[in-house]
Amino acid sequence: MGFGTYLIVVLTIATAVASPAANQIHLLMPHSGSAGKNHSGINCLSWRVAVETDNIIGWTQIPESCVDYVGHYMLGQQYRDDCEVVAAEAYKYAQGLNLTGDGKDVWVFDIDETTLSNIPYYARDDVAFGYIPYNSTRFDEWVASAAAPAIPASLKLYNQLIELGFKIVFLTGTREPFTVPRTENLKAVGYTQWEKLILKGVDENGGAVEYKSSKRKALEEGGYRIRGNMGDQWSDLLGSNAGDRTFKLPDPMYYIA
Amino acid sequence: MGFGTYLIVVLTIATAVASPAANQIHLLMPHSGSAGKNHSGINCLSWRVAVETDNIIGWTQIPESCVDYVGHYMLGQQYRDDCEVVAAEAYKYAQGLNLTGDGKDVWVFDIDETTLSNIPYYARDDVAFGYIPYNSTRFDEWVASAAAPAIPASLKLYNQLIELGFKIVFLTGTREPFTVPRTENLKAVGYTQWEKLILKGVDENGGAVEYKSSKRKALEEGGYRIRGNMGDQWSDLLGSNAGDRTFKLPDPMYYIA
Repeated sequence: MGFGTYLIVVLTIATAVASPAANQIHLLMPHSGSAGKNHSGINCLSWRVAVETDNIIGWTQIPESCVDYVGHYMLGQQYRDDCEVVAAEAYKYAQGLNLTGDGKDVWVFDIDETTLSNIPYYARDDVAFGYIPYNSTRFDEWVASAAAPAIPASLKLYNQLIELGFKIVFLTGTREPFTVPRTENLKAVGYTQWEKLILKGVDENGGAVEYKSSKRKALEEGGYRIRGNMGDQWSDLLGSNAGDRTFKLPDPMYYIA
Repeated sequence: MGFGTYLIVVLTIATAVASPAANQIHLLMPHSGSAGKNHSGINCLSWRVAVETDNIIGWTQIPESCVDYVGHYMLGQQYRDDCEVVAAEAYKYAQGLNLTGDGKDVWVFDIDETTLSNIPYYARDDVAFGYIPYNSTRFDEWVASAAAPAIPASLKLYNQLIELGFKIVFLTGTREPFTVPRTENLKAVGYTQWEKLILKGVDENGGAVEYKSSKRKALEEGGYRIRGNMGDQWSDLLGSNAGDRTFKLPDPMYYIA
């Protein structure tokens, strides 16, 4: 803003202070208040925590008044810190386990918003961090581009788990025709090895809980022990054969039932 | 601080700005940074969200560097807002249910940090919002005093649910010898009616999940339908007969397995 505008702002403040009747000072109030509380009424931090705790379910878009909040959260340090605290807790747990050494102790990772980040896609104007409802054509194009970066905390945990002797299973709701770009994307950002990479068949219907439970059941029937299971959606972690312990990474951008 | 101190602070800032070698300005940094991030390294908001999402479990005291953060959170607007968002979501869900009108549709409420608040106890110097580990003698004295206030969002929901036709069941880990003060406390703050008030028998052992599951099972065997179940601990909501839908209220002060 130019110096002239600046002068006007200063004068506005001076007027507001000098006279209780003047209320132009509200024009200087930020769109969002402290702790993500938007002046329109929704406390965006409360909304986010309610989403993370599975209290708010079945939503198809983020609240309009929380677009800035979610964007700042996802692009800022808080999201990274939130991921790191969860990954550190998972590592502490994993370190305390006795592995049998038979190669059957597995850690299940979801992919989107768990090992790979779709932030470059969600930050686009035509996605708006989840305010614009999911568009499968656009998202599929993004997945096919195999350009998603790793989530740093998850990549670190992945390497730590391999070092401890765990086998890695990636279990994703991405459909099987995307096997090549998903494989390329994982390898390109540092996830270079795995025991299994499970994608959803084109003929598999049903929700995420049902699909993921059935795949985990098949793993356990195949002699694997699911010692840990990490995802960004509760539908990654609920249902049968969930694993000895589950870890929920943050995701305030979309909800998968 | 006096005017003399103020002058010194101003001069310190001036010195720091004038000379890169001067670093006294760090003395002016607040103990806690933005979003609850303490400069000692723990991001207290990340810790709180990890607790709320059941990622951090089995803890016996809050992190020392988060005492101020948890205190400010519990005494401030954010905790109230967090409770209100969950209660509003629960009411929205409850409004969408068809009740049979036979008086068997129940809503299960935990008591501590769900319907009654122990903030006056937890704010004490000898409790420090959960930094000082749980002391059963002190806490029992507080419960016996029957002085806990209602959590406003929960009391509002309670009245809304009764209006909709739900029967209320209070299910608490408090032991049966405290039946009288608990009853008095609930009634004094506005919870004036209920179908059942279930306390834990003096001979009942086992963890909260086992205890609460068995009581909920008995309810369902008695013909009740648990349409909703609300608590501040995951051990209120996990296990068997959990109810058609569960709601997790915030509690960063203590963990009950």
